[in-house]
Amino acid sequence: MNFYIVLIVISWLAWLESAFMLIPAIVGLFYKEWSAVGAFAIVAVGSFIFGSILRLITKIIAKKRTVKRELYSREGAASVAIGWIVLSLIGAVPFTLSGEIPHYIDALFETISGFTTTGGSILNDVEALSHTCLFWRSFTHWIGGMGVFVFIMAIFPLLGGYSMNLMRAESTGPSVNKLVPKAQNTAKYLYGIYIALTVIGFIVYKILGMSAFDAATTIFGTVGTGGFGILNTSITSYSPALQWAITIFMILSGINYTLYFCLIRRQFRDAFSIEEVKCYLAIILISTAVIALNIRSMYATTGDSIRHAAFQVGSIITTTGFSTTDFDLWPSLSKTILVLLMFCGACSGSTGGGMKISRLLIMFKTIRKELSSMIHPNEIKKIQLDGKSVTHETVRATNVYLASYFFIMLFSTLLVSIDNFDFTTNFTGVVAMLNNIGPGLGGVGPTCNFADFSIFSKIVFMFDMLAGRLELFPMLIIFKLGCWKKY
Amino acid sequence: MNFYIVLIVISWLAWLESAFMLIPAIVGLFYKEWSAVGAFAIVAVGSFIFGSILRLITKIIAKKRTVKRELYSREGAASVAIGWIVLSLIGAVPFTLSGEIPHYIDALFETISGFTTTGGSILNDVEALSHTCLFWRSFTHWIGGMGVFVFIMAIFPLLGGYSMNLMRAESTGPSVNKLVPKAQNTAKYLYGIYIALTVIGFIVYKILGMSAFDAATTIFGTVGTGGFGILNTSITSYSPALQWAITIFMILSGINYTLYFCLIRRQFRDAFSIEEVKCYLAIILISTAVIALNIRSMYATTGDSIRHAAFQVGSIITTTGFSTTDFDLWPSLSKTILVLLMFCGACSGSTGGGMKISRLLIMFKTIRKELSSMIHPNEIKKIQLDGKSVTHETVRATNVYLASYFFIMLFSTLLVSIDNFDFTTNFTGVVAMLNNIGPGLGGVGPTCNFADFSIFSKIVFMFDMLAGRLELFPMLIIFKLGCWKKY
Repeated sequence: MNFYIVLIVISWLAWLESAFMLIPAIVGLFYKEWSAVGAFAIVAVGSFIFGSILRLITKIIAKKRTVKRELYSREGAASVAIGWIVLSLIGAVPFTLSGEIPHYIDALFETISGFTTTGGSILNDVEALSHTCLFWRSFTHWIGGMGVFVFIMAIFPLLGGYSMNLMRAESTGPSVNKLVPKAQNTAKYLYGIYIALTVIGFIVYKILGMSAFDAATTIFGTVGTGGFGILNTSITSYSPALQWAITIFMILSGINYTLYFCLIRRQFRDAFSIEEVKCYLAIILISTAVIALNIRSMYATTGDSIRHAAFQVGSIITTTGFSTTDFDLWPSLSKTILVLLMFCGACSGSTGGGMKISRLLIMFKTIRKELSSMIHPNEIKKIQLDGKSVTHETVRATNVYLASYFFIMLFSTLLVSIDNFDFTTNFTGVVAMLNNIGPGLGGVGPTCNFADFSIFSKIVFMFDMLAGRLELFPMLIIFKLGCWKKY
Repeated sequence: MNFYIVLIVISWLAWLESAFMLIPAIVGLFYKEWSAVGAFAIVAVGSFIFGSILRLITKIIAKKRTVKRELYSREGAASVAIGWIVLSLIGAVPFTLSGEIPHYIDALFETISGFTTTGGSILNDVEALSHTCLFWRSFTHWIGGMGVFVFIMAIFPLLGGYSMNLMRAESTGPSVNKLVPKAQNTAKYLYGIYIALTVIGFIVYKILGMSAFDAATTIFGTVGTGGFGILNTSITSYSPALQWAITIFMILSGINYTLYFCLIRRQFRDAFSIEEVKCYLAIILISTAVIALNIRSMYATTGDSIRHAAFQVGSIITTTGFSTTDFDLWPSLSKTILVLLMFCGACSGSTGGGMKISRLLIMFKTIRKELSSMIHPNEIKKIQLDGKSVTHETVRATNVYLASYFFIMLFSTLLVSIDNFDFTTNFTGVVAMLNNIGPGLGGVGPTCNFADFSIFSKIVFMFDMLAGRLELFPMLIIFKLGCWKKY
C-alpha cells in the first residue's frame, strides 16, 4: 500500500469533517444549547488540527524520499475503509463530550449507524437529545448517503484520473457508471441531483406541516436512506399526507441516479428503459399490494392499510428504516416479505443499501444462463443488462460478493448469539445492520433498539454496518495482511 | 430432451422399486402384519407392471423410428429429477393403502423425506406405525442415501460411458470424482463401502444392546444420514454407549468416500491429506467443544454435556437429524452453531446433505483470491484443493449453486410464511428441508414435526427436500421449458 497517498486522503477527510461539524454548532447557537455547541466546536477544531498534522507528516515524507501520487484500487479500497472508520471515530466524540450519550462505544455505534445510513439506534429516548445532537445525528445520514469521498472529489480536482478508484470503493452497486467521462464531473452531477432532491423534499415537508427543524432532519434521513427519526415514535405521529410524501421521497432516493441524469439530459428513452429501475418499481408495487391485503383487517380503512404497507415497503427496500406502525405485529407473510426486501435493497447508484437489485438481476440471469447451457451445451450466451453485455469481471465480482455476504451474515449471527437473545432477533438484527436498514424483527423490531446488546455484539454490528455500506470488499481488504505491506 | 432414453431409465427404476418393496413385505410376514404386507405386495406388483408398460412403450417407439441411446447431461439431470419424483410417488402408496398414513400428501411428504434422507416427519406418533411401514420408512433412507441410479449402475452395465451423466446428477458435491476410470466400477466401490459400513454398524448396534429390528432401522438412518427414528423420542431412550456409537457412525457416514477408497487401496498418504475431511473433522471438534462448554450447566456431568454436544453436532453437520435431547432449549449460541452447521453440511462424495464442506472451501478460497488480486492486480493465481487446481467450470458451478440456493431458500421461506407460523419456525424449517436435515428450531424443533403445515407448504417443503438432495440443478432444469423440447 502507498501510505503516503492514503494519509493525504485521510487528512482531507479530517478537514472536511471539521467543516461539517460547524453546521450543527450553528444550529445549536440558534437553540442556545451552549454545552452541545461547545462540544461540536472543540471537536471541529480538534479534527482540523488532526488533519493538519497528517498533512504535515506527508510533507515530511515527501521531503525525505520520492513519493508517488498514485492511488490504485487497493489504496482506493483501503482509504475508503480507513477513512470511514476515522470519520466515525471523530464524529462520535461530540455525543460523549456533551454528555448526551455517555458511553463512547454507544456514541460510536450511533455515529456509524448514521454515516452508513443504517438508522439503528442504541437510544431508548431519542427525544432527550439536544437539537444540536439530533441535527448532527441526522446530518451524518446526509453525509454518508452519497459519500464523503464523492463530495471531496466533486469539489477538489485532487487526484486526476485516480479519483475513480476512490469513487468505485465508495459508491454502490456491482459496477460504477461514470455518467460523464471525467470522474470529477460525475461526482458533481451526483451531488447536484442529491442536493436538488434534498431541497425539494425539504420544501414539500415544510408545506405539508413540518417545522423547519423536523423537515431538515427528516429529509436528511430520507434522501440518505438513513432512517434516524427525531421522535421516539419515528414517523407515526405525522399526518397521512406527510407519510405519503416521505414514502415517495424514500422511493425516489432508492432509484439509480443514472435515471435522473438521463432526465436532465432529456434522454427520456434511456431513462425509462433501465431494467433495474423497472424491476425495483415492480417489486415495490407487488409487495405493497400483497401486504396491504394481508394486513387489511388490522386497520380501519383500506386506505390506511395501503398507506402503512407502501410506507414500510418503501422504507425497507430503500433500507431507510423509518416506520409508521409496529410491523413486528403483522402476520408472518408480511413480515417475511419485509425480510426479503431487506436482502433485496435499492438500486445500485443510489444512496440505498442492501444487495442492490442489479446484483440480484445479474445472479438471476447467471442461473438462467447456467441452466440454459446445460440444455444447449454448445450455445454461447452472454448475460445482458439494459441491452449491454455484463462483463465477466462484474459477474465474478457479483458472485464473490454473494459468497462474502453469506459468510459475513452467518458468522455475525453466530457472534451476536453469545448475548443469548432469540434467533429471530439475532438473525434479523444482523440482516438489518448488514443491509443498512435499521430495525429488524423481534427484539430489534421497529419499537425496540440495539441498546441491550453487549459491547462485543455492538462492535460486530458496527463492522457489519460499515461492511454493508462499503459493499464488503473495502472492509475485508484491511483485514488482509498483504494490504499493509509497503509498495 | 431424448424422451426415449429417459423412459428407459424410469422403467428400470420402477422395477428396482418393486424389488425393494419386497423386503419390507418379508419383514411384515415375520411380524404377521397382514394388511401392511398386502399393501406392499400390491404396490410392488403395480410398480413392476408400470415399469413393464414403460419398457413396452420404448420398444414401440424403437420400432417406429430410429432412436438414440445417448444420455447427455441434460437427460441425466432430467432423468434423475423425474426418477426421484416417480420413486417417491410410488413409494408413498403403501403408507396410504395400508391406512397407516391416511392422507396421500402426508405419505408423500414422509416418503420424500425418507428418500432424500431428510428425516423430517409429519407423524405425531411414530410408534403407532406397523413394523412393516417403519422398516420401509427407514429403508428409504438407505436407498436414497447413496442413490438409486448409482445402485442401478453398480449392477447393470446399461449405458456405457453415458452412465456418468446419471451419476453426476445424483451424487453429492461440486465435482464428482471417478474413483476408477469406469463409472460402473466406481458405483460398485461406492456401494461396496456403503454396504460394509451398514453391516459393521448393524453388528455394533446389536452388540451394544439394540434388537435386530431397532439396529437395522437405526443403521439405515445413520449411514444414509437420514434421521427417521422408530421411537417418538428419537435416540433419547438408548444407552449412552449406543448414543456414542451412533455419533461415530454418523460422522463416518459424512466423510468423503474417497477416503475409504484410498484406505482400501492402501494409499494412506492420499487418504489423510484430503483437505475437506480435515476441515470437516476440525469443525466437528471445535463445535462440540464450544457447545459442550455452553450447555455444561444444563446437564449433570461434563461427560453428559460432551455426549449431547457431540451427538447433536454429528447429527446436524451430517444432516442426519437424530436427537438425544431437545436442543431447542439450549442457549442461543449453541443453537446458532447448529443452524450454521445446517448450512455447512457434510463432505462431498458422502451420503450427507447441505452445501458440502468442499463448496464452502472453494467459496472461501475464491474470496481470498479476489482480495489478493485487488492487492496484487498483476498476479495470476488458481484456486487449489488437495494440491490440484480447481477448474474454472467447478468454481462457476459453485457460485451459481450458491445463488440458486439463496433464491430458493428465501423464496421458500416467503411461501411457507403464508401459514403464519413465526419466522424462526419458517426459516429454520426451510433450512432443515433444503439441507435434508429434518428438525429445525421453534415449531419444527426436535420434539415437534411438520404435521401442522398446510398442504401448500408441504409441497414447498417437498420441492426443497428434492432440490437439496439433488443439489438444485436437476430440480430447476425440469422447470425450464426448453428442457422439454424434443431433440
